[in-house]
Amino acid sequence: MNIKYFSRTLLVLAMIGAFSVNAMAKDKVIKWKLAMSWPKHLTPLSSPPQNFAKMVNEMSNGRLVIAVHGPEKHKAALGVFDMTKLGQYQMAHSGSYYWKGKDINTLFFTSMPLGMTQDEQTAWFYHGGGLELMQKVYAKHKMYSFPGGNTGVQMGGWFRKEIKTVEDLKGLKMRIPGFAGEIMADLGVAVTNLPGGELYTALERGTIDALEWVGPGMDIKMGFHKVAPYYYTGWHEPASEMQFMINKKAFDKLPKDLQAIVTVAMKAAAADMYSENYVASADAWVKMKKDYPNIIVKDFPMPVLRAMKASNDKLIKKLEKRGALTKEIIVSQREFLKKSREWTKISEYSYLKSMIALEN
Amino acid sequence: MNIKYFSRTLLVLAMIGAFSVNAMAKDKVIKWKLAMSWPKHLTPLSSPPQNFAKMVNEMSNGRLVIAVHGPEKHKAALGVFDMTKLGQYQMAHSGSYYWKGKDINTLFFTSMPLGMTQDEQTAWFYHGGGLELMQKVYAKHKMYSFPGGNTGVQMGGWFRKEIKTVEDLKGLKMRIPGFAGEIMADLGVAVTNLPGGELYTALERGTIDALEWVGPGMDIKMGFHKVAPYYYTGWHEPASEMQFMINKKAFDKLPKDLQAIVTVAMKAAAADMYSENYVASADAWVKMKKDYPNIIVKDFPMPVLRAMKASNDKLIKKLEKRGALTKEIIVSQREFLKKSREWTKISEYSYLKSMIALEN
Repeated sequence: MNIKYFSRTLLVLAMIGAFSVNAMAKDKVIKWKLAMSWPKHLTPLSSPPQNFAKMVNEMSNGRLVIAVHGPEKHKAALGVFDMTKLGQYQMAHSGSYYWKGKDINTLFFTSMPLGMTQDEQTAWFYHGGGLELMQKVYAKHKMYSFPGGNTGVQMGGWFRKEIKTVEDLKGLKMRIPGFAGEIMADLGVAVTNLPGGELYTALERGTIDALEWVGPGMDIKMGFHKVAPYYYTGWHEPASEMQFMINKKAFDKLPKDLQAIVTVAMKAAAADMYSENYVASADAWVKMKKDYPNIIVKDFPMPVLRAMKASNDKLIKKLEKRGALTKEIIVSQREFLKKSREWTKISEYSYLKSMIALEN
Repeated sequence: MNIKYFSRTLLVLAMIGAFSVNAMAKDKVIKWKLAMSWPKHLTPLSSPPQNFAKMVNEMSNGRLVIAVHGPEKHKAALGVFDMTKLGQYQMAHSGSYYWKGKDINTLFFTSMPLGMTQDEQTAWFYHGGGLELMQKVYAKHKMYSFPGGNTGVQMGGWFRKEIKTVEDLKGLKMRIPGFAGEIMADLGVAVTNLPGGELYTALERGTIDALEWVGPGMDIKMGFHKVAPYYYTGWHEPASEMQFMINKKAFDKLPKDLQAIVTVAMKAAAADMYSENYVASADAWVKMKKDYPNIIVKDFPMPVLRAMKASNDKLIKKLEKRGALTKEIIVSQREFLKKSREWTKISEYSYLKSMIALEN
């Protein structure tokens, strides 16, 4: 081997080395999977995880690629908690209150009946201690959880007959799941649960008298307004926040810049869902009112609301005894609601009151 | 030179080469400056640009470093538009309506009297065509502009005497700047402008009869409540959105991943300011009510609101003739407000109405 040949070889090797070091930095692609509880087409619920994955891909220049799967792929809408906890998926997008059977403390991070509005609750999450409490709850399950997009006020549901008194609730057959269902049961409602696909027929035939779903944007596709004309305004989910979950080990292993990218992208995606749904709800409501002028929008009468509140307070009092952390969350939410509502009253609420009065 | 020495040298060079290529990718630090209209301590207005710079730094792993300067450094609170347009600064954080003297179309991207709430306007920006219109306006000035954080409803101001009739506005000396000032002038108010530092004394001595500032969080430091007990609810800036401006050339030169990082960080920082201010306002309002129980919160009477609306409509009609783009923006906002308000009425508003009724 002569010196020229040797040095040329070394030079080539050196160049390859130089390139490969750089290429390694560039090509070290991390692949994650995210399991969401909703099928891909179910916007706006399915929008945050999909927008999130796109933002992460762009911001990381392809170094963190996240495949988003709906139940059409992973086959278990409500299995995403365990899949993420066990690390089969690195992330999930769902609703925290679905896990109250596994851990009662997860109940409080979606929306509570008669609770905070979206403005108030989002402020609680990011600047009122809410996110810290959420992390405390999910740490036990070896996951992080972050706000994942808000639906805003969900409507109180479709009723075949008007609800005039508390008596009208007794024996009423209604589909209303979760904690709100417990309140309704406490008031004598025969709470039933039926798969989404059976609801329209059940309501049409009178197998059930009422049901709640989401709001105009999602209700319109179900056709409930055709068979139950009374559309009640919201009380039970004033600000339903979805959630991102992340397997703790997977997140902790990421380099710091990718951790920042994931965190910021979740926040932007969550904020965006509320806006997306606002427009979808507004558009659907315009269309509904035009196509079905027989829809009658109602607020629940005050005695009914008072009864709901009494049942709610009673059930919350019971929950407070479930443990120190449960109580800490309830107290945090109650105190934040109290102070922020005083501000809401003289700002958003007074403004809207004046503007609505001006319309007439 | 023996072969061993030569090859060792080459090897070292090769290694340096390898490192330097990699280091180059790592160390290619882009340095930007952002000029904000507010001093650093003036939270929440100064929070979005500072949070934004921090997020960009973390997400880019230090490849894009943004120095944030307030007027204490750049010496021109309202010079930031020109500084960014001319490229002396790559970015700015300010309020779009400050530029109405330069370009009337910038007026519409902060908040319009009797206009959209924060929910509605944010939905308009991101899902109702608002952002596209804003970009159209700022393209003429070789800049991009994005939402930069919302204050929510600003209070209608502090008044020494109660406003009972439209007549009470005639000759009233009030500090109220901008388009709302034009409406007040149309109603006979003697609109004055005074530097912030002179306002308290002017109000105390009766040189002025009233003024508007922001809301409890920022008003409390000014002490107005001590000399003008009537605190009117908002009508003139229901959802003041701040803005980020970016020099077009500087942004277009960035690699795609940094463009994505900048865009997403602005969105997250903007969303966060609204929450930060919600808490600050709530806290300040609790404190104010406790320390100064003599504060009297009032809504403007209906005839006064009707007169404001008539003046507003008249002035907007005039503005519509200023050009096709101006008209396009006004029509877009009007139509979006109309459809989204119908949804707001049966969701947020009805919910709050029921909850407030329940308190009594």
